Amino acid sequence: MILDKSYGEKICYSFYKNIFHYLCKNPFEMQKIKDYVEANKDRFLEELFELLRFPSVSADPQFKEGVLNTAEFVAQKLKDAGADNVEICPTAGYPIVYGEKIFDPSLPTVLVYGHYDVQPADPIELWDTPPFEPTVRDGKIYARGSADDKGQFYMHVKAFEYMVKEKELACNVKFMIEGEEEVGSANLGIFVAANKERLKADVIVISDTSMISLENPSLETGLRGLSYVEVEVTGPNRDLHSGVYGGAVANPATILSKMIASLHDENNHITIPGFYDDVLELTPEERKALNEAPFDVEEYEKDLGITEVWGEKGFTTIERTGIRPTLEVNGIWGGYIGEGAKTVLPSKAFAKISMRLVPNQNSERITKLFQDHFEKIAPKSVKVEVKPHHGGEPVVTPTDSIAYKAAEKALEETFKKKPIPTRGGGSIPIVALFEKELGIKTVLLGFGLDSDNLHSPNEKYGIENYLKGIETIPLFHKYYAELSK
Amino acid sequence: MILDKSYGEKICYSFYKNIFHYLCKNPFEMQKIKDYVEANKDRFLEELFELLRFPSVSADPQFKEGVLNTAEFVAQKLKDAGADNVEICPTAGYPIVYGEKIFDPSLPTVLVYGHYDVQPADPIELWDTPPFEPTVRDGKIYARGSADDKGQFYMHVKAFEYMVKEKELACNVKFMIEGEEEVGSANLGIFVAANKERLKADVIVISDTSMISLENPSLETGLRGLSYVEVEVTGPNRDLHSGVYGGAVANPATILSKMIASLHDENNHITIPGFYDDVLELTPEERKALNEAPFDVEEYEKDLGITEVWGEKGFTTIERTGIRPTLEVNGIWGGYIGEGAKTVLPSKAFAKISMRLVPNQNSERITKLFQDHFEKIAPKSVKVEVKPHHGGEPVVTPTDSIAYKAAEKALEETFKKKPIPTRGGGSIPIVALFEKELGIKTVLLGFGLDSDNLHSPNEKYGIENYLKGIETIPLFHKYYAELSK
Repeated sequence: MILDKSYGEKICYSFYKNIFHYLCKNPFEMQKIKDYVEANKDRFLEELFELLRFPSVSADPQFKEGVLNTAEFVAQKLKDAGADNVEICPTAGYPIVYGEKIFDPSLPTVLVYGHYDVQPADPIELWDTPPFEPTVRDGKIYARGSADDKGQFYMHVKAFEYMVKEKELACNVKFMIEGEEEVGSANLGIFVAANKERLKADVIVISDTSMISLENPSLETGLRGLSYVEVEVTGPNRDLHSGVYGGAVANPATILSKMIASLHDENNHITIPGFYDDVLELTPEERKALNEAPFDVEEYEKDLGITEVWGEKGFTTIERTGIRPTLEVNGIWGGYIGEGAKTVLPSKAFAKISMRLVPNQNSERITKLFQDHFEKIAPKSVKVEVKPHHGGEPVVTPTDSIAYKAAEKALEETFKKKPIPTRGGGSIPIVALFEKELGIKTVLLGFGLDSDNLHSPNEKYGIENYLKGIETIPLFHKYYAELSK
Repeated sequence: MILDKSYGEKICYSFYKNIFHYLCKNPFEMQKIKDYVEANKDRFLEELFELLRFPSVSADPQFKEGVLNTAEFVAQKLKDAGADNVEICPTAGYPIVYGEKIFDPSLPTVLVYGHYDVQPADPIELWDTPPFEPTVRDGKIYARGSADDKGQFYMHVKAFEYMVKEKELACNVKFMIEGEEEVGSANLGIFVAANKERLKADVIVISDTSMISLENPSLETGLRGLSYVEVEVTGPNRDLHSGVYGGAVANPATILSKMIASLHDENNHITIPGFYDDVLELTPEERKALNEAPFDVEEYEKDLGITEVWGEKGFTTIERTGIRPTLEVNGIWGGYIGEGAKTVLPSKAFAKISMRLVPNQNSERITKLFQDHFEKIAPKSVKVEVKPHHGGEPVVTPTDSIAYKAAEKALEETFKKKPIPTRGGGSIPIVALFEKELGIKTVLLGFGLDSDNLHSPNEKYGIENYLKGIETIPLFHKYYAELSK
């Protein structure tokens, strides 16, 4: 029997072609992104610098114009990158920038969330270079918002640009970039509830967290919730002469100090009755796994310039910042804080106090517990007022989801190392909100580092983190689409 | 036998003249002062208003010019009133205004001390009318420094004017008006030591204290000393994100609160070891006498808008402010104190703390005890720095001295009621300094009221207190001269 040559050739051809394709496709695609990023690197950086120059401090009304201009800029950049239906959606506060690209309804949809507002820059005098004039030192971009969150959400805009221009879109994409994350996203919930249809998606991806290091990529699988309050303690109806009245009238600064001091016991457990009631305790195995993440306490102390770490007895530093609730004084003030000496017994003293929450604590319940307790422990000699600022719910993201696996695969490909699951200490209230309102899970694809000085002077973001992030995101879309089939 | 009529007339004349003189001299003289004050009242007030318009805040460098202009004004007014050798004596800080009238070396010399500098006006927003624009409401002059001490030392300038113009000087007079009392009189000690000859006097009179009320005149017989420190607690080397680091790094605001809280025990005793060692305890009789001064605790609470007084267990309010040492937080600050919410774990927290001292405590020793204790109780997780600001020694003035008796007599004549001896809670470090350097005792001839809002917004001084003070001072000089014979 004689074989048909051409048939054999065909088989061989398709056989080799498939092997070739199998072997080469991924490297080629990875290379294609790398080349694009390399070719556009300078522009990507220049655009980010432009974004960072807007002083979009949402907490301080004097920056209102800066915040609004930032929204305009973000909207324009989404259009430039190829987004459709770009809109600056007004809210009772700062607007939300929306944009989308629906090119094939049969494909999964990725909703990108980020925020264009930033923390206040003060204490301004501690910045080595101006907070709103990005400066590069040792490969890091120093500017308020460079890592939190402008530098991180903008990676998605640039990765999106690549996918559109290079016809590499694997999923439909939606963007929702808000301007009130740093002040509690008060109006986002309303917007989400009112736009369920428009925001429909299969997964939400947020880059507003950190990884252990470029050598040790990691994926955050949990976020703490938040309860933020401001307290006011009033003693006498006016500032008094501390000589004439000192010793006979309760000093609100002293009383506030005593009240704050009493909120932690000698083991640094929080003393508010019921505070720990709903805390989800981890199993020994889970705690063991958590503590396997690379962590050098001496490096940690050295970086912070402290002689020893501090915290709740019976837990490691990783646990204290990851799976345990905390209570921190974010600000305290009262009396004469100017130059020199003033012998005054102040009428009022204030503090801003925030509590980080873990599953399954509820921010409203914790705020109420704090309020009741703080009012209860106030001595009769003063009046106390507790004003709730804002809150957010803790979340845990699944590690067995398609989204997590896609992120894991994408990171592994970029960093040549499988990412470790970690628990983040920060809070992104929107994550819980999304789950509740839209029933969509989130994947926390963060490229920052804990040492980026978030909320501190000299906030920074590594250029390599920024570019590697842009490289990784298209891979995430690709694998998410593949795994969703 | 016939009597010589003219002789008889002479006797009668001299007899009646003497009786008449005896009966009428005092009322006449009192009337003469009253008439002079009445005739010049408006000018006396206008001149005081001019003085009060100078913003002579010694604690804040931005008011330097205001302080220096005040010295010029005071010097000019002393000249106008008839003082000789008026000089604006430079010091390392603000100048001391000196002036004198030595008209008969055989007569006793009264040295008047006062201060032309004032406390800072902030919190400025709590003033009903501008602090440096004197405003009269319900017979009170509202302005920073109206009672402490411009309004009070200026009474002496105007009483002096009367005595010079009306030839009623009974003693030689010296004036020393300084400009750094509110910041610890750092340079006065040097000046006094260098001018012992020029400052030679028999008694020092200071009007920088208060009386119980116009109905209940009183004389302060004691003043508390002062130890003023500023503390700085440093945690991490930078402000941190309270989510990323919260719960794992000692928060200096929390630690400072705990440290301050620990400075008073549950009975409001001060916990600094050795703090009470040198406190001179009063006898039960002395305490009884002290507590006989009219005092209505309900009125006191009502005036201050508090529901209950506060203080060291086992002592009355009069004792707590008069004969017991105290520790007060005059100011506290750290972290984010601006509008809105910032989730920061601050790098530093600060407090201004002052202690009022009683005989026989020593300010340097107490400052050292505080410093040692505060550094000792600081946890290893923070660094603590204690900066001493300034201090002053407590004093007790004798009630059996000629000066006290003269003041008592003068007040009784003006107020038609014998003044009660009281213990003041405030501090005038100069009193102890004078005694030490010049060996001269002081009489505290104060006309203010505790309710004058010293060191507070809406400081005020009663017009009647001001005018009655001017009436009383010449009587003090007269009786002091008489009793010195």
